Amino acid sequence: MERKQIIGVIGSGRATPEGYAAAREIGRLIAEAGAVLVCGGLGGVMEAASRGCTETGGLVVGILPGAEAEEANAYVGLPIPTNMGHARNIVIAHTARTLIAVEGEYGTLSEVAIALKMGRQVIALDHRFSFEGVIVVPTPREAVRLALAGVRASQPEAR
Amino acid sequence: MERKQIIGVIGSGRATPEGYAAAREIGRLIAEAGAVLVCGGLGGVMEAASRGCTETGGLVVGILPGAEAEEANAYVGLPIPTNMGHARNIVIAHTARTLIAVEGEYGTLSEVAIALKMGRQVIALDHRFSFEGVIVVPTPREAVRLALAGVRASQPEAR
Amino acid sequence: MERKQIIGVIGSGRATPEGYAAAREIGRLIAEAGAVLVCGGLGGVMEAASRGCTETGGLVVGILPGAEAEEANAYVGLPIPTNMGHARNIVIAHTARTLIAVEGEYGTLSEVAIALKMGRQVIALDHRFSFEGVIVVPTPREAVRLALAGVRASQPEAR
Amino acid sequence: MERKQIIGVIGSGRATPEGYAAAREIGRLIAEAGAVLVCGGLGGVMEAASRGCTETGGLVVGILPGAEAEEANAYVGLPIPTNMGHARNIVIAHTARTLIAVEGEYGTLSEVAIALKMGRQVIALDHRFSFEGVIVVPTPREAVRLALAGVRASQPEAR
Repeated sequence: MERKQIIGVIGSGRATPEGYAAAREIGRLIAEAGAVLVCGGLGGVMEAASRGCTETGGLVVGILPGAEAEEANAYVGLPIPTNMGHARNIVIAHTARTLIAVEGEYGTLSEVAIALKMGRQVIALDHRFSFEGVIVVPTPREAVRLALAGVRASQPEAR
Repeated sequence: MERKQIIGVIGSGRATPEGYAAAREIGRLIAEAGAVLVCGGLGGVMEAASRGCTETGGLVVGILPGAEAEEANAYVGLPIPTNMGHARNIVIAHTARTLIAVEGEYGTLSEVAIALKMGRQVIALDHRFSFEGVIVVPTPREAVRLALAGVRASQPEAR
Repeated sequence: MERKQIIGVIGSGRATPEGYAAAREIGRLIAEAGAVLVCGGLGGVMEAASRGCTETGGLVVGILPGAEAEEANAYVGLPIPTNMGHARNIVIAHTARTLIAVEGEYGTLSEVAIALKMGRQVIALDHRFSFEGVIVVPTPREAVRLALAGVRASQPEAR
Repeated sequence: MERKQIIGVIGSGRATPEGYAAAREIGRLIAEAGAVLVCGGLGGVMEAASRGCTETGGLVVGILPGAEAEEANAYVGLPIPTNMGHARNIVIAHTARTLIAVEGEYGTLSEVAIALKMGRQVIALDHRFSFEGVIVVPTPREAVRLALAGVRASQPEAR
């Protein structure tokens, strides 16, 4: 069975208006590409990405820190409650081949770092995450384009 | 957004022919009901349930013990690698409101017990799991019927 | 460096008077043997075992379900908050070579089963846990004697 | 019961000679202060810190990524195998009130970030970790002095 590509979107539980709009567009583009979106399932950047994806008919997997599905934002189609707190970030990084960081603070930084440690493709809209190994991009469209290309390994711009 | 019901199927990584057939039928019935199937994503009972569900057009979420999606059986549509070994069983029990145990040994017993501890509805085809709180049923059809009813709380046969 | 033997004590967060007394004696005997006691760090059987061990000068490691050390009972010398809920049971089973089950319900049953799955030596004072692979013993003294012997593999009574 | 202070030491599994020496001194100073050292239990910075602490008579808790205690470096007195891979870093951050980062790459960065997210005191010898909230210090002695002071909250230099 051919599986759909899974793209992770990470970022703060509280988004700026710009961050919310960017994450929502990323979600929309992921759905349009026929990929699955995985995120932490809560508010802010996570909600915006979930919303964009679900509004466009895509599937959103929310890997939640708490024990109950009710914790998920309203746009998560498939809630996975882990009851493992921050350790659920590790599961997100294992699940997605590519992570797109929108904006965030320590939690997002931690997720970016662990994804780099695991050898995942990491794309960021936010210059604060411009570590070696992170591809910083100017637009949601470029982020999703590179994420989709990242799995098709022959395309050199993906690395 | 209304979410699909998520039903867990648990059991050994090695299935008897009878267990394989029963799990496959459970998977088929879950898909026919429009529910999502969650399982441990490996072989045996997990593979059989995944196969029945995917063959019937349903979605299978495989919550994997290892770090890589490649570990999933061929019928898992959405692999969630946790790299948490047996602790992934806890995530399965949090994710599904109902768990159907087909056949298995200590691993399945552990999963049945933790699901009871969490207050999940647990249905078993195997009399070895007939603890207080477990509903033992004779057929896959009855198992899935009760699982579906379990979430519609007003139906007394579900408890 | 030679490491001290680590023995796990598992059981309900609410103990009967008999269970409390038995667990406390097990803790005392573990300390007298110079071994380390690991448990879930909360009340009931866990508290009793911790108390017996600490009162006798032994070290108690409490692997906690929550995020804060303050959750540990007063006799835990070394609290390890995991914030992983029931998944911390898996860590206990990995940490101890031998687990002694005093009395309990589904949570303890789940722990017994996962420990058997991992190939750990499991000793129980409670006949409800008399699965294949569990050594049921009549007294705390016999439980600790077998636990200590279990690691010295040449002593046949340990299996 | 009064518990000993628990100080975490984090850093790469491969240490430079300078990093090894610094971590070893940190371990020694932690032992001299009567505190417990918690780390990831493997090589490099973790081994050096474990060595310094154990050589000086202190207790080292190694919270391991794998399933077996044998994975621990030779200076870990109390191995806690989690079988949870990188998620064990979260447990380390929950266990220690203070984390001292010696040198490292993405794994250490991730640990620093998650510790800051949790509100832990984070001290670093390495300027690469000089995020807001991290206290960068010039020497192992200053790192341990601040770590010890950090728990005695009235001392303003700790924050």
